[in-house]
Amino acid sequence: MPNVTPAADSHTMTPIDGGITAPEGFTSAAVHCGIKAKPGVLDLAVLASNALASVAGIFTTNLAQAAPVLVSKRHLDMTRGIGRAIVVNSGCANACTGDEGLANAARMASEVAADLGCEPSQVLVASTGVIGVGLKMDRVVSGIRQASSSLARGHGGEAARAIMTTDPFPKDGAVRVATASGAYTIGGMAKGSGMIEPNMATMIGFLTTDAQVPPALLRRALRESARDTFNAITVDGECSTNDSLFAMASGASGVAVTDDLYPGFLDGMLAVSRHLALGIVRGGEGATRVIAVTVRDAQTVDAARQVARTIANSPLVKTAVHGADPNWGRIVAAAGRAGVAFDIDRLTVTVGGVLLFDHGLPHDDAAPQAAEAFARDTVDVELSLGAGDASATIWGCDLSAEYVRINGEYRT
Amino acid sequence: MPNVTPAADSHTMTPIDGGITAPEGFTSAAVHCGIKAKPGVLDLAVLASNALASVAGIFTTNLAQAAPVLVSKRHLDMTRGIGRAIVVNSGCANACTGDEGLANAARMASEVAADLGCEPSQVLVASTGVIGVGLKMDRVVSGIRQASSSLARGHGGEAARAIMTTDPFPKDGAVRVATASGAYTIGGMAKGSGMIEPNMATMIGFLTTDAQVPPALLRRALRESARDTFNAITVDGECSTNDSLFAMASGASGVAVTDDLYPGFLDGMLAVSRHLALGIVRGGEGATRVIAVTVRDAQTVDAARQVARTIANSPLVKTAVHGADPNWGRIVAAAGRAGVAFDIDRLTVTVGGVLLFDHGLPHDDAAPQAAEAFARDTVDVELSLGAGDASATIWGCDLSAEYVRINGEYRT
Repeated sequence: MPNVTPAADSHTMTPIDGGITAPEGFTSAAVHCGIKAKPGVLDLAVLASNALASVAGIFTTNLAQAAPVLVSKRHLDMTRGIGRAIVVNSGCANACTGDEGLANAARMASEVAADLGCEPSQVLVASTGVIGVGLKMDRVVSGIRQASSSLARGHGGEAARAIMTTDPFPKDGAVRVATASGAYTIGGMAKGSGMIEPNMATMIGFLTTDAQVPPALLRRALRESARDTFNAITVDGECSTNDSLFAMASGASGVAVTDDLYPGFLDGMLAVSRHLALGIVRGGEGATRVIAVTVRDAQTVDAARQVARTIANSPLVKTAVHGADPNWGRIVAAAGRAGVAFDIDRLTVTVGGVLLFDHGLPHDDAAPQAAEAFARDTVDVELSLGAGDASATIWGCDLSAEYVRINGEYRT
Repeated sequence: MPNVTPAADSHTMTPIDGGITAPEGFTSAAVHCGIKAKPGVLDLAVLASNALASVAGIFTTNLAQAAPVLVSKRHLDMTRGIGRAIVVNSGCANACTGDEGLANAARMASEVAADLGCEPSQVLVASTGVIGVGLKMDRVVSGIRQASSSLARGHGGEAARAIMTTDPFPKDGAVRVATASGAYTIGGMAKGSGMIEPNMATMIGFLTTDAQVPPALLRRALRESARDTFNAITVDGECSTNDSLFAMASGASGVAVTDDLYPGFLDGMLAVSRHLALGIVRGGEGATRVIAVTVRDAQTVDAARQVARTIANSPLVKTAVHGADPNWGRIVAAAGRAGVAFDIDRLTVTVGGVLLFDHGLPHDDAAPQAAEAFARDTVDVELSLGAGDASATIWGCDLSAEYVRINGEYRT
């Protein structure tokens, strides 16, 4: 992962190798248990803390919440943020599956708990895959048994592969944060959009740390870091039934994150989250380019975010970027329909630093440089609304015929 | 156009041949004046009433409103809904063009007014095409001169072709409404999404009638008929800088639309508008299927419309319909993220009359019939929210690789 500039306080941050098991105190295992048809493809993983850890979760806002989401939320409520493990499967979302689905998600937790010798409520659950299909529980249970018996520190990379669906590459990473009170590690992994079978763009993410962080502070750090990373990306504007983001803090480094050390901890969470979130966008279904939309000089951060999100989700902007077509009129039109009031005569648009629209008037002479800016791996779109001093960035990707192919092919 | 069932009052309605010049008192002309590069392709049209007519307009809600929209709104304000003509060009949107664009749009009106011998404010203006490019006014003025001198009743079909861009077919139609007080005609034409160069999905529509309708009543009928027709369709969820819908009432039939006759008049406006609006969807960029989403048993009509619109705009639903994939989980997930509160355990989903999701549980045995329902020319999606008794329908189309090709090809 890329180098990260340390914040202005006393910590320094260094990217290191590894993912969820880079921090002390965690083991994981990944297996193929037959949820996915193709032999040998990993489809179930367990992430475990050696001892009770602080845990936190953020979940989809969709009204149709999958059974694993409902079970994980209940367990977090019951334990007030203390847990031992997370079990996750790919290949089946266990969503829209009624009472039987809820019982199956609860059983996944209790089977892991039995193996680890903890309470079922100390295990969280995640699933990703086709909606409306039930889990084959005999396979899931035998997979859990196999995974629980092979938990090891070195298996983090396999876990990152076990949660993949049509993701073109695994997404994991870690940073080491050094402070005056000692050093600790933050690791993570995530999956993005797509399924072997066409399906929801389902985001699932895991963050681990060996810092000692009380549950309430871990929740706060997870919420604050997600806001500008996992919650600032979009592949197709869809919000799935299963979106889940988890954090676990083992405390094994012996470094206690107090208010003093919180800025450094948040920095580390942000760095790992940004790396994973950008990996999701880069590996979005059919994506060939990343679009980074920054809106400045808005009245509020929410307004900036709403305009940026409307542009990043616009099919006409996404297809223009796919075709490297410097069609800036679509950016102006998307901004104008975002539901945020601003004066179009004060609007300025640059792409890749090239000024294309300046206070209501086009800069047509800039078209050749703009075409070059639209053809980059990451297309930087910047708008100034001239209405205030708030800003926000949303990351998206282009819309390609491959997206249509992945999601339109008949399921047989 | 299809036969229309008359409402329960004293009028009868019959589809007839023709478009905007089917009603008495209107002439039109269409010319190629060189806004579009390809020789002979019609790119400018004038629609004129023989005498002063009631006129009304509905325009885009985009903050970035094109010059012709601003000029037409100003003219409607000045005249309080009295006018003689509408001039429209394709090939250039005259949007994001600043003061010069405003002057050009105003000049289009004044040139037509000079030819017809009326006030410039009695002429409305519409443009569709690339954003941020100025009109070549010498060509436009010579086109107006040529059109004004060839106005005739028989040129309605040419006008419907002159406003086309990538529309695969022209969209026009008319109905004859017979009442106890006499008969009158309503005609119309519209253009949909796409451009010869890739560009905004720009909707422009025109309705004409020889009924005698005061401006305020014409505005009301236009607003009410658009709500469930032109404002109930979506190709890609984009709202352009140029969207405009006009109505003109010449009164030449001698039938005065009073409160008594209003239901029949609204029926006629709805019939022509629905025909044109469905034509826009059917001819949407890259569209191969129409998706009709009806949401019933919602708390309010707005709530029903919002859920239906979210489903009709969902890229995952649109790609599933494109691939004839009965992936109903995507419909449930889109409904769940629509921002409307309802109980997922009371949600029912049918496609083509096949029950797929019933009070929170899947009906997987229905998959084969559902696949057949997803493969029809029009895919009927119906949801019951179980929350009230309001309902609404939104018409959309599938998302194909052809949409990406049309909108992603590099402009050279």
